[in-house]
Amino acid sequence: VGAPPFKSDRLYATTPPGVVMGLAWTAMGGSTLYAESAVVEKGAGKGSVTCTGQLGEVMKESATIARTFARSFLFSRDTDSDFFSDHSIHVHFPEGAVPKDGPSAGVTLVTSLLSLAMNKPVAPDLAMTGEVTLTGKILPIGGVKEKTIAARRSNVKRIVFPEGNHRDYEELADDIKSGVEAHFVSEYSQVFDLALGHSAEEARANGPSTV
Amino acid sequence: VGAPPFKSDRLYATTPPGVVMGLAWTAMGGSTLYAESAVVEKGAGKGSVTCTGQLGEVMKESATIARTFARSFLFSRDTDSDFFSDHSIHVHFPEGAVPKDGPSAGVTLVTSLLSLAMNKPVAPDLAMTGEVTLTGKILPIGGVKEKTIAARRSNVKRIVFPEGNHRDYEELADDIKSGVEAHFVSEYSQVFDLALGHSAEEARANGPSTV
Amino acid sequence: VGAPPFKSDRLYATTPPGVVMGLAWTAMGGSTLYAESAVVEKGAGKGSVTCTGQLGEVMKESATIARTFARSFLFSRDTDSDFFSDHSIHVHFPEGAVPKDGPSAGVTLVTSLLSLAMNKPVAPDLAMTGEVTLTGKILPIGGVKEKTIAARRSNVKRIVFPEGNHRDYEELADDIKSGVEAHFVSEYSQVFDLALGHSAEEARANGPSTV
Repeated sequence: VGAPPFKSDRLYATTPPGVVMGLAWTAMGGSTLYAESAVVEKGAGKGSVTCTGQLGEVMKESATIARTFARSFLFSRDTDSDFFSDHSIHVHFPEGAVPKDGPSAGVTLVTSLLSLAMNKPVAPDLAMTGEVTLTGKILPIGGVKEKTIAARRSNVKRIVFPEGNHRDYEELADDIKSGVEAHFVSEYSQVFDLALGHSAEEARANGPSTV
Repeated sequence: VGAPPFKSDRLYATTPPGVVMGLAWTAMGGSTLYAESAVVEKGAGKGSVTCTGQLGEVMKESATIARTFARSFLFSRDTDSDFFSDHSIHVHFPEGAVPKDGPSAGVTLVTSLLSLAMNKPVAPDLAMTGEVTLTGKILPIGGVKEKTIAARRSNVKRIVFPEGNHRDYEELADDIKSGVEAHFVSEYSQVFDLALGHSAEEARANGPSTV
Repeated sequence: VGAPPFKSDRLYATTPPGVVMGLAWTAMGGSTLYAESAVVEKGAGKGSVTCTGQLGEVMKESATIARTFARSFLFSRDTDSDFFSDHSIHVHFPEGAVPKDGPSAGVTLVTSLLSLAMNKPVAPDLAMTGEVTLTGKILPIGGVKEKTIAARRSNVKRIVFPEGNHRDYEELADDIKSGVEAHFVSEYSQVFDLALGHSAEEARANGPSTV
């Protein structure tokens, strides 16, 4: 039996708002793993998050954590935003037949939700991995080598890793790292600056997603 | 024991709005697999989707993904539509005694929901298979050969396959492909053009389903 | 252990509105199997269906399918009806200690719900079996011989079978079929004409059930 390998290493040439490239690590090696977020419904008190993509319990919890943190992060930058209170959001991880689990999609999930809320795309040359705590601390993950290889194979130029994996990365052979720029972060705000660049106020001028 | 084989290879001579012919693949070979959608209830805030037909978890998730995507797709073409917010929808896959699973009914599900929302039937000579992501990307599926054989047996003239299965199809023997026209798609909008042809605005003039 | 056999081959001399005689098929042979429907609660937005009688998942799904189809069927004949939106309905299959499953009670369930909604009894000399799809197509079932024997034993004069079982029935020995009139249907509307005869508009003049 055995699950089929991840096939679509670069599903998106350019990613729309709400879509972020993460990095996964399986027994068969590393692979890219997109998080896709979309609005299901809008309305006062409709705030919620639904996940699909055959996610395990830890990954479902990551999505809940991501929503709570994304809401408070957006709030800290833009006190008028009620996006997460007023929108029910659906987060999907293709491919539907491949079971997925673990906490390392945390940064990808938060970034996907913020990208959707701000209606602002993330640069497509960027991939990320890292566990997020409820206050935005970034915790280390596994599979640094496999994820680096997978990111390069998908023409990623910049990878976001947790600071706690800095030494793992330094120990990799140079040929694995060539052509890739690694960024090490300990707080989510650093991921935000890399992925969604300019300020939330500025982005919000474009208006929230009205899908 | 063993599940009974799919019996009804062509259940519908012509399909009403909400009914779409998909293609399934089992240990016993390929078969057609209809998705049937109907409105259960209408009312502000009643939006939901219920599935029956002994579906596994992956297929239930496909239905959730299909609803989220169909809603945003309809919205992008027809900004006044509140069909998916205001209608609870029931999707059934006959036959009830045959367990079904997998993500490859994604395109069939989206098309079934859009056909219902637009109250517009899909051409009965068309069958389709493909996984859909939350943003409408089409991912490859398994069983290209078996599904092609099943489609021909049911007098299907046009099959919609994912672009990612183009090579699988080309490698089939000519006698398997004779009399069938295969279309390869990478975005859902291409499926829509094939299955529901003219524009949403035009179809909507006929009014939404009021079942 | 082993489940007790179905005992009550003719539980009802005449059936009140909401009660319909179906036919079941077990390892121990065929038997009659009544569906009993009753209103639990009435009120705007209270529409729902609850099942009892130790039903398996497939049979519970059949009840959901039956409700969706019965609603749209009633709607197509009587555009003012809000019976299924405004009533929570309970469907029970005696006997409670006997586990029951399978999709072949579909026609029985739909007829039971329509009989309740229209407050109109079904002729007591009629028994039925067949899977129903969400659009009212009738799919074949198993146990044609055993069900025919059970129907005769219960003094049933007319049996409704799916068209897909026509050949199975023709192959039965003449002594099994003597005294029974079999009707073969491919659409639910044919069952309706046999079981609930005159038009929905006419029956509705009697008013909906107010239990």
